[in-house]
Amino acid sequence: MRQKITLREVGLRDGLQIHPTFMQTRDKLAWIVAEAGAGIFEIEVTSYVPPKLIPQFADAAPVTEGALCIPGLTVTALIPNLRGAQRGIELGVHKLNFVMSVSHTHNMKNVRRPPAESVADFREIVALIRSQPVNARPVICGGLSTALGCSYEGRIAVSQVVKYAVQLAEAGAQELVVADTVGYADPNQVRAVFKAMLAEVGSLPVAAHFHDTRGTGLANVCAALDCGITMFDASLAGLGGCPFAPGASGNVVMEDLCFMLDSMGYDTGVDLQKLVAVRTLVAQALPDIAMQGALARAGLPQGYVPAAVRQPA
Amino acid sequence: MRQKITLREVGLRDGLQIHPTFMQTRDKLAWIVAEAGAGIFEIEVTSYVPPKLIPQFADAAPVTEGALCIPGLTVTALIPNLRGAQRGIELGVHKLNFVMSVSHTHNMKNVRRPPAESVADFREIVALIRSQPVNARPVICGGLSTALGCSYEGRIAVSQVVKYAVQLAEAGAQELVVADTVGYADPNQVRAVFKAMLAEVGSLPVAAHFHDTRGTGLANVCAALDCGITMFDASLAGLGGCPFAPGASGNVVMEDLCFMLDSMGYDTGVDLQKLVAVRTLVAQALPDIAMQGALARAGLPQGYVPAAVRQPA
Repeated sequence: MRQKITLREVGLRDGLQIHPTFMQTRDKLAWIVAEAGAGIFEIEVTSYVPPKLIPQFADAAPVTEGALCIPGLTVTALIPNLRGAQRGIELGVHKLNFVMSVSHTHNMKNVRRPPAESVADFREIVALIRSQPVNARPVICGGLSTALGCSYEGRIAVSQVVKYAVQLAEAGAQELVVADTVGYADPNQVRAVFKAMLAEVGSLPVAAHFHDTRGTGLANVCAALDCGITMFDASLAGLGGCPFAPGASGNVVMEDLCFMLDSMGYDTGVDLQKLVAVRTLVAQALPDIAMQGALARAGLPQGYVPAAVRQPA
Repeated sequence: MRQKITLREVGLRDGLQIHPTFMQTRDKLAWIVAEAGAGIFEIEVTSYVPPKLIPQFADAAPVTEGALCIPGLTVTALIPNLRGAQRGIELGVHKLNFVMSVSHTHNMKNVRRPPAESVADFREIVALIRSQPVNARPVICGGLSTALGCSYEGRIAVSQVVKYAVQLAEAGAQELVVADTVGYADPNQVRAVFKAMLAEVGSLPVAAHFHDTRGTGLANVCAALDCGITMFDASLAGLGGCPFAPGASGNVVMEDLCFMLDSMGYDTGVDLQKLVAVRTLVAQALPDIAMQGALARAGLPQGYVPAAVRQPA
């Protein structure tokens, strides 16, 4: 039995949120349909933030409703606060990705409160979810951004990451995601952070969200795999980026991640050719967006046999 | 004590050999001087092949002679055959990197003989070197290209890599280098190949030469580190590439590799800022060459403290 890996597309949220051109709702839905068709079964489709803050997500409702029509797809959305959670519950989204920064400065800039207050917000969100009928409760995920470095504070102490991971777990998070928001991490740091965290909250599913800003994205994925992590965020064509590093790479490139994992023998459920083909659709819809991706440029190796049909070595 | 890693610049050979514009000898030497000044102490400066085959290396003699004037630098060059070895010995180069392909088809296309005949050539080269006065003998390195995949034959059996590694070792190689010439490797494959090889030839220094054609370059470096490998080839700005994949990435990017290793706490001896600055010199000399590199685009993390001056965690 090959080890199963869960891949989660975050390009529609993390990729589009800093892109100045609005992507049409129909194009977003076509992207979601195509990528789900390639075998990506969990997609963060939008963010429930006020449209005046991020106009890109003005169509959060129709995008969520459209995505929810795709059989087998887990539809998730980012929420910064209780109001976002309320919208998600009303829309019937499957999973809410609450996010807070481990970095005090970054959390102040992002949501204008210290991390401890964000944990308090999270408790209210959990209470709201638990007040719903059982079949109307989305899964609640606690996200720790800047966990591997911050553009304001630099390195973040491992103890801080563990502290907030434990607080979110105790507050009722059903899964956690640890994010290298600005792409500072190296594989040794990844091992240190994940090992320390898993020692405390190892009973919860923990996902890794890496950016490839300094080229270490896939190496960091391997370090997390070594720790037993089997859920990874990535974005098609590496969409996303960092407002502090114009022109820099964004999230780990989904196609390259899928190729590496498939080549290593993991079960991703993804059809690599179909996945690469989704790029065309995005490129046509957003001709001005920068697309990364080594596999798309180089193609699959000669005679490449996907893991699903390969004989064990 | 931090683990020491030896980094070897191969851009002047592997990077330039497929580039159609001749890089002026003075520009090559300026590059070598600058990169040695940044802390890269071993540089493959050229290839001893007939200029009518690769005009880029028409200045192999003055480049070698100039590089040999740089104190502390190990000057190496690629050789495809005995004639190349003769030229290297006459020039007084420090190390000769003999290269043969593990893939039969690739070796036929490259040097028009099967791998077994290349091993025979290698024996003659070793004999020639041993016939020289002791202080005029270059170090002889045996290189196995296409060891992790071939554009003609696809995957290469681990047993084939081990077979030729043993033959080169028995023939007198003082070190070996294993190359993923076309960027097919994944970290599990790297572990399998290096473990099997080291079990047979582990008494020799073994280096890894990875290409980043499909984005897995740094992940493969980490897999080789896990196996105990401490010598890596890379090229500034990832120069190089693959004639079969136009526009694809080339060698592992030296700056990104150095950043990752330094961040992980390894002792590379490299000054990252000085290394990144060498790019300007190459870009001015060859304005038409495609340059890769995430660190150069994104910059060092906020408050980054180099390993050399960092307190142990």
